[in-house]
Amino acid sequence: MLRKNKKISCAILIIGNEILSGRTKDQNISFLALWLNSNLGIKIEEARIIPDIEKIIIKNILELSKKYNYVLTTGGIGPTHDDITAESVSKAFKKKYLYNKEAIKILEKYYGNQFNDPRKKMAKMPEGSKLIYNPSSAAPGFIIKNVICLPGVPLILKSMVHNLKKYLRPGIKIYSESVNCQTVESKIARALESLQNKYKKYVEIGSYPFFRLGKIGVSIVIRSSKKSNLQSCHKDIIKIIKKKKIKIIKGA
Amino acid sequence: MLRKNKKISCAILIIGNEILSGRTKDQNISFLALWLNSNLGIKIEEARIIPDIEKIIIKNILELSKKYNYVLTTGGIGPTHDDITAESVSKAFKKKYLYNKEAIKILEKYYGNQFNDPRKKMAKMPEGSKLIYNPSSAAPGFIIKNVICLPGVPLILKSMVHNLKKYLRPGIKIYSESVNCQTVESKIARALESLQNKYKKYVEIGSYPFFRLGKIGVSIVIRSSKKSNLQSCHKDIIKIIKKKKIKIIKGA
Repeated sequence: MLRKNKKISCAILIIGNEILSGRTKDQNISFLALWLNSNLGIKIEEARIIPDIEKIIIKNILELSKKYNYVLTTGGIGPTHDDITAESVSKAFKKKYLYNKEAIKILEKYYGNQFNDPRKKMAKMPEGSKLIYNPSSAAPGFIIKNVICLPGVPLILKSMVHNLKKYLRPGIKIYSESVNCQTVESKIARALESLQNKYKKYVEIGSYPFFRLGKIGVSIVIRSSKKSNLQSCHKDIIKIIKKKKIKIIKGA
Repeated sequence: MLRKNKKISCAILIIGNEILSGRTKDQNISFLALWLNSNLGIKIEEARIIPDIEKIIIKNILELSKKYNYVLTTGGIGPTHDDITAESVSKAFKKKYLYNKEAIKILEKYYGNQFNDPRKKMAKMPEGSKLIYNPSSAAPGFIIKNVICLPGVPLILKSMVHNLKKYLRPGIKIYSESVNCQTVESKIARALESLQNKYKKYVEIGSYPFFRLGKIGVSIVIRSSKKSNLQSCHKDIIKIIKKKKIKIIKGA
């Protein structure tokens, strides 16, 4: 018998002063959200950006890991003094913070005689962690309980996510469609509201104004776990737009 | 007598399913963080991204407004059914959700005989709010207690921030310097750790690896409210780098 997938929820915790100061723009939230949904049907319910401060990391790990099926953290697992994610997660879960034998082997092989103490730090993690392999720069991420710790550098993170798949229980994939049209939100607001009432919780309808390439428009985005609902809602939107003689913008 | 500025803290609350689904990349956090620090010396202590769900908005508004001097929200103040920020903030603070007379006047003037009901919705906000004027598309943001609600569209938000300045108490400006050098983190990790110990809480030292234009490097970022501390720490970093014969990358 096929087991019906349940909704699986997830939070993202971005750890890093450089994101909060505005110096670095986060690129990981949107990548992870799209990847988790399309590959595993896991939905991001919340994302937080917090500084590299131990007690704040601990508080957020405990809070989010209780509330959601999974917590994905990015940042703070490198070799320098400001990389304190692994130690903070150990403290949060009252686990010993120690060298993972497999991680030591991987890093020893990768660095050879250049395997110094700061690099050894990258093998230190909560006792009982399982590794998320890193094909681009060796230093692994890890999973302990329902918390998965990944690096902050987007290129490295992207190279690692497929090694994460086996640890995550899949949920319900959310399908989406969008219709971009040359109008302003207020002209379609009422019709969209009625449509949202018609589809209630089966389809989530969002409306987003845009200004692009000299064009003013609205992107209507619909999301649902059921393709049939999505298609019927999409047809309704096209009907509304045609009735109002609004132009559809293709490829916007 | 000059009043000495205190540390002023702030949280950013991004409200919008489109950011959580990954469809839209947030651009407001880094813009607001840089703008608040350079113009007002206000530091972002935390940022959260949450969905357009009333009870979640209310919970976060209450939690963050208690914890920080200011909370800046973006998103959810447009004319459509999924724009529920203003109503949710009213409920959070137990204020009536009603038409603001000044906002009605502004929008009436802007839209003329096209001032329909969905557009009127953009003048509805918590009783007692003060307006944040919007020079690009008229619909104002608002401030109620220590919560400031701004739109989500980055271009509009950017056009409004200078109208926000008068409502915020300035804090201590944080100065920063960065040194980009051709090395790997593990080669400078120990020296940076000693340096962090030397400057303790007076200078925050961060280390960020990068891969850009075929170059591997590390960006060392130092931040302090005191220019003299920053300069002396900067000198120490240059000394370390020269001693280790590491090349500085200019303009990286």
